Amino acid sequence: MSTESSTSSDTRAPVVILVEPQMGENIGMAARAMANFALPEMRLVAPRDGWPNPAATATAAGATHLLESATVFPDTRAAIADLTLVYATTARERGQMKRVLGPKEAVAEARPAIAGGGRVGILFGREREGLWNDEIALADAILTYPVDPAFPSLNLAQAVLLLGYEWFSQSQEGALPFAEVERVPASREMVVSFFDFLEAELDARGFYPPEKRTTMTRNMRDMFLRRGLSEQEVRTFRGVASTLMRSPRKLAGDEPAA
Amino acid sequence: MSTESSTSSDTRAPVVILVEPQMGENIGMAARAMANFALPEMRLVAPRDGWPNPAATATAAGATHLLESATVFPDTRAAIADLTLVYATTARERGQMKRVLGPKEAVAEARPAIAGGGRVGILFGREREGLWNDEIALADAILTYPVDPAFPSLNLAQAVLLLGYEWFSQSQEGALPFAEVERVPASREMVVSFFDFLEAELDARGFYPPEKRTTMTRNMRDMFLRRGLSEQEVRTFRGVASTLMRSPRKLAGDEPAA
Repeated sequence: MSTESSTSSDTRAPVVILVEPQMGENIGMAARAMANFALPEMRLVAPRDGWPNPAATATAAGATHLLESATVFPDTRAAIADLTLVYATTARERGQMKRVLGPKEAVAEARPAIAGGGRVGILFGREREGLWNDEIALADAILTYPVDPAFPSLNLAQAVLLLGYEWFSQSQEGALPFAEVERVPASREMVVSFFDFLEAELDARGFYPPEKRTTMTRNMRDMFLRRGLSEQEVRTFRGVASTLMRSPRKLAGDEPAA
Repeated sequence: MSTESSTSSDTRAPVVILVEPQMGENIGMAARAMANFALPEMRLVAPRDGWPNPAATATAAGATHLLESATVFPDTRAAIADLTLVYATTARERGQMKRVLGPKEAVAEARPAIAGGGRVGILFGREREGLWNDEIALADAILTYPVDPAFPSLNLAQAVLLLGYEWFSQSQEGALPFAEVERVPASREMVVSFFDFLEAELDARGFYPPEKRTTMTRNMRDMFLRRGLSEQEVRTFRGVASTLMRSPRKLAGDEPAA
């Protein structure tokens, strides 16, 4: 990724707006979650314990740049004034005539809006009381999470985390930070030559009951082929088989009995 | 959902295995995350501060049933002995010749394995050091998260949360705890009749420049139709328009000037 594209994607990511957060610890953990998933902008509406808050720094695990650049607003209306598409997070049905989306669907809807020049924000409510109905009424749609109805209460930072996860997964198309170590796949000739070697050695040792040899051979070949074999794996299997064919090494001082 | 199907899905959900967790707070938050997403079984490998741990209870936010039923094992091998498919969570590449999956892909792979009678478990490592390479070697595949490489460090409970989110989303097909309030969609006749009424009243008040009337009418109709109108919304718009057509009410004591 070039710095340019990364910057442009940064400034267009959804804004996270914490409305009257009560615990500094949760603000810090929300910042950490935002950093995990490249959400660069936090806004705070009237945080209970003022701002800045040392308890937030303590739990941000290094994501202090997000805390330092956070903007504080007196009310929710001011915090969303410049946005064009706003989601209100709620855990319970509020009887509002509003569309209800999960994080996957909200991100899928936000991405083309952002690509078209829109600015998107997500409102997260107070830890205990959530968002007021009048705040929800300012949003375009309700965002809620697919949780077990028997235990629906998500921590504030965890709600931010899941939104960030969907944002990052969809905008990066699920790119993982690292991939499988590159394996050089073994050619079929290398594999079959190993089978020939192994089966001949097993034959020489009476491994197969004659009437079962065909089936057993096929099954064992499938066992090796099932996940695909790399060159290194074929060499290793071959080495293991060869080693097993040797007599056990004598340990030092372990002389054969007379 | 019947109790039966819920029980059966419970006992088959992936097992969460925390290997030598250091902070009781993280164990509690992991339990809470498991409860959010219906993961019923926690296993602990040699938790640093012993077990049970009051710090875990303090952060579990009521998910104490998961802590009380957690099983403690002396080592990772014992903790996964009865499982048939095991994922090892790592944040960094470990140079192991192992498949690397994200949470979405791991859950997608685990579901048919579980449906076929398998038992699946996910290993989560120590907060600071993660899993040892010898522990990873016991797993079938590596699980890692799509995070910003600039800030990849996920909190232990948040890693559990994201796995649970994928599990619950996929096994419940993303079912949200509540849906949009049911709206009775307005019939097209009701909508067009409202348009006729509104446009006639606007005509009567000289709203439209004649040469722009057609375009303005089409645009305004689109504005109303864009999201679909419910019967209630049409009634409300009609009421608003009618009200605007009235003279402002006199406030008490606000007599017209003589």
